[in-house]
Amino acid sequence: MTGIKKSAQASVEAMYRVFTIPEAPDSTLSRIDQDISRNLAGFLQDHIVAVERDLADVEKNFSEYSVPEKPIFVSEQTQFLLDKLVANSVHTASPAFIGHMTSALPYFMLPLSKIMIALNQNLVKTETSKAFTPLERQVLGMIHRLVFEQDGSFYRKWMHNPRYALGAMCSGGTVANLTALWVARNHAFPAEGNFRGLQQEGLFRALKYYGYEGAAIVVSRRGHYSLSKAADILGLGRDALVTVATDSNNRIQIDALREKCLQLQKQKIKVIALCGVAGTTETGNVDPLEAMADIAREFGAHFHVDAAWGGPTLFSRRYRSLLKGIEKADSVTFDAHKQLYVPMGVGLVVFRDPSLASAVEHHAQYVIRKGSRDLGSTTLEGSRPGMAMLIHSGLKILAREGYELLIDTGIGKARTFAAMIDEAEDFELITRPELNILTYRYCPAQVRQALESADEMLAEKINTSLNRVTKFIQKTQRERGKAFVSRTRLEPDNYYNFPCIVFRVVLANPLTTADILSDILAEQRLLAGENGIADEMAILNNLAAGARARA
Amino acid sequence: MTGIKKSAQASVEAMYRVFTIPEAPDSTLSRIDQDISRNLAGFLQDHIVAVERDLADVEKNFSEYSVPEKPIFVSEQTQFLLDKLVANSVHTASPAFIGHMTSALPYFMLPLSKIMIALNQNLVKTETSKAFTPLERQVLGMIHRLVFEQDGSFYRKWMHNPRYALGAMCSGGTVANLTALWVARNHAFPAEGNFRGLQQEGLFRALKYYGYEGAAIVVSRRGHYSLSKAADILGLGRDALVTVATDSNNRIQIDALREKCLQLQKQKIKVIALCGVAGTTETGNVDPLEAMADIAREFGAHFHVDAAWGGPTLFSRRYRSLLKGIEKADSVTFDAHKQLYVPMGVGLVVFRDPSLASAVEHHAQYVIRKGSRDLGSTTLEGSRPGMAMLIHSGLKILAREGYELLIDTGIGKARTFAAMIDEAEDFELITRPELNILTYRYCPAQVRQALESADEMLAEKINTSLNRVTKFIQKTQRERGKAFVSRTRLEPDNYYNFPCIVFRVVLANPLTTADILSDILAEQRLLAGENGIADEMAILNNLAAGARARA
Repeated sequence: MTGIKKSAQASVEAMYRVFTIPEAPDSTLSRIDQDISRNLAGFLQDHIVAVERDLADVEKNFSEYSVPEKPIFVSEQTQFLLDKLVANSVHTASPAFIGHMTSALPYFMLPLSKIMIALNQNLVKTETSKAFTPLERQVLGMIHRLVFEQDGSFYRKWMHNPRYALGAMCSGGTVANLTALWVARNHAFPAEGNFRGLQQEGLFRALKYYGYEGAAIVVSRRGHYSLSKAADILGLGRDALVTVATDSNNRIQIDALREKCLQLQKQKIKVIALCGVAGTTETGNVDPLEAMADIAREFGAHFHVDAAWGGPTLFSRRYRSLLKGIEKADSVTFDAHKQLYVPMGVGLVVFRDPSLASAVEHHAQYVIRKGSRDLGSTTLEGSRPGMAMLIHSGLKILAREGYELLIDTGIGKARTFAAMIDEAEDFELITRPELNILTYRYCPAQVRQALESADEMLAEKINTSLNRVTKFIQKTQRERGKAFVSRTRLEPDNYYNFPCIVFRVVLANPLTTADILSDILAEQRLLAGENGIADEMAILNNLAAGARARA
Repeated sequence: MTGIKKSAQASVEAMYRVFTIPEAPDSTLSRIDQDISRNLAGFLQDHIVAVERDLADVEKNFSEYSVPEKPIFVSEQTQFLLDKLVANSVHTASPAFIGHMTSALPYFMLPLSKIMIALNQNLVKTETSKAFTPLERQVLGMIHRLVFEQDGSFYRKWMHNPRYALGAMCSGGTVANLTALWVARNHAFPAEGNFRGLQQEGLFRALKYYGYEGAAIVVSRRGHYSLSKAADILGLGRDALVTVATDSNNRIQIDALREKCLQLQKQKIKVIALCGVAGTTETGNVDPLEAMADIAREFGAHFHVDAAWGGPTLFSRRYRSLLKGIEKADSVTFDAHKQLYVPMGVGLVVFRDPSLASAVEHHAQYVIRKGSRDLGSTTLEGSRPGMAMLIHSGLKILAREGYELLIDTGIGKARTFAAMIDEAEDFELITRPELNILTYRYCPAQVRQALESADEMLAEKINTSLNRVTKFIQKTQRERGKAFVSRTRLEPDNYYNFPCIVFRVVLANPLTTADILSDILAEQRLLAGENGIADEMAILNNLAAGARARA
């Protein structure tokens, strides 16, 4: 009903109306608002069209390139969004969509988000956030304690201390990792003598002053791509992200890591930071953090742990030992919109040492003045919304026990799915789940037999063919819209490290059942028999038959 | 009603409940949800306590540092948030809170946000965002056209072209500025011969290869603090943000700028970028963008315009000429949560040349594969929410005419307020509004007279005293809770560039009336007469009387 329709003077009034008069209770938008409150799952089910439309086709609805001259009614825009946007969006909450790291949300997150948006606070300074600032500091404190387990006196001293920050709230894990490495980089080249520090004088002079030829960040080859982006942004260059080989469980090889650090040292390249991964994005494995911490100490490097995915495993009494050594990290990334079940996009980084963030401290006259409690003085971002309120609510309403349950059932479900795949003759488990992520592919029994004894050339032929099959199944299943697994590329040891395309599955949605998982395998099996991939399957079967004949 | 209460097996069921069963319609949270829909202004008015509580006191409610072990009911947490968080938050939508850049929001933004959060898309890749990706590309296209005014064939060619991006969506202006300067930095040191480019090899080798001693970003002294933060993050060092003097209207001095660039060139320092400001944060002035563009071209530097605040002035036929020359920029920052009236936090940067963003392109196997339409391949952030939907809705529902009205009335109101201050004997306008921002202070007539003829020493004494008065009034007014202006520090020419603390006012809330502005002055006048500042006022009056006696 509200909207701005031009007619000389009336337009001013119309504009005020959208700022002053709520949507009428019977308007399209109000009805949707109520629908979502009453039955979110139903709303998503009813409005998202399952079968995928080609993106090029969808683009036609978004081809206008000028800001329209004349206002339209809210109802008109709402209908447009329902028909063209919502209908063609992704049902990320669906329990059969297990290909990405976005899950269903607890119902209470939605009305709480509304309160947050209604308040529209800006966390850059206390003047525009007041109680939200102590709340954010508390959330950082709680995650800090979960990770580093300091005692009460520590938090009483530092949590609300205006000159320190136990961490930084960010829009997501990428900015969290970048923040940690920014701190690490500046900390590695501090002010000394007549050198005023990298923060002030820059990387070029820092390396010259300290007599280095370069600087590096070391991580396993399974590290997240945000780390290489961070190396670029920080001026180190993508080459400065030095990757180390992993063992057969996708964990960094400690000997190779130490060797690499020694090598860098010899080349006069300063090792700024080692990054441990606690939950690799592709396979969900955890690096040997304890051993990495020792090596970091040996080389005087910052030890960062990217626990964007796996961090909340610390809530689980049964599985928290998988992350042993994380408490020795200098900084740890957590993503809240992943396994803290908060809406997109919020993440955070916590620093073991409360003074560490001072390496990136900054001030301005109109905001974040020195000595204020403003959290903006050590965050990469400026204006930020009050998402901490949603993390706070999750931590209080679900509590440790609730998150433990989510973690434990997720890992349990991944093991169940792995067992199903192991049992199935025509599927091959590629990586066994350590947390709640696994990879596998469709691979008929005779092809697997052939692969087992295949030489490098035959293995390459078979895997090349299997890659096409995997790609076809993944893409077609996504397009059909009943279920979604993602795909990635791994280089398994047993296949001469040939790049194999695999299905990747993330089991974080508590509503995903064993039946759903079984249905996903069944659909994939059916898709493998479809015409669209018949030629490739014939090639595969020929390769397998040939191998059998030779044997 | 929903919540997780432990009792052996029951806990699993309870956990499922928060993911499957909506809040009961009569629950605390549902009632708030409906309240906000029906009457947002009333909700904020009723629940935010006007009188400010000391932050140290508020902190007591957020002093727990452990994640609680046992779940609590949603209703309990909701009540806590209402009493302890909402009550002590800032009424950013209040028409009398004119000290920050956050305004009231159009009503439709709230239910639309709910749809956005319910869908929980992730814009990093099309697999988790589908139609949201073309929508985001359209929003970038629309702002691109608003700024650069290319023709239809340009947008048909580039807007949805998977290998290019007309800009990048960000969490706010800080990340937008950082992204632009990241692009500029990498672009300044491209691959050549056996050098593989700064992106790959880093700043140290880039400067060596190209034979420079350093690299700089040049901006007026009124540039936003995010630019110095960007210089730090990008490895250039804060010193690399070279500031140039401004004229009496807070605009960069073109001669001084050119001089500075020549000087840098002589020192073998590469000028990476010039930053024009279109709406300085403190005073709302716009740099002479056209002349800056010419100098940028002369020195082969990237020309970035930080239009985080002033960008939407382009919607106004009357005022868009203030930004003349912006169309010659290489990149332009826009903040959506400022004058596009979208909730916190979203901003964007647009690039004139669609291939510019390739300087920061990155790919990964599991997301943002090469050739995909995924917008994540050129954004600084990874996972991102679908905020573009809210910008899209603003642009459609308010349209150019609606935003024009908002801009025109804001600037008109700033002029009205300036006239009020001019007329008042006991207030001094410090900076006249060019856009909708102005600064002023309380300054009794006889003190102003004394200042007019004061030598440097007397001016310093008077201004030091006035600074205390300004600080007292601003702080006390904020604490009383009826109105809020912010304060900053400027160095006016006419007072020998002595740092003067001033009130800063931003007139973007369409609900702010002339009466409210007049009340704000009246309250400030009253506060100046309070006991708390009486001693300082006596000093001031003595200084003024002494000056009069000597004259």
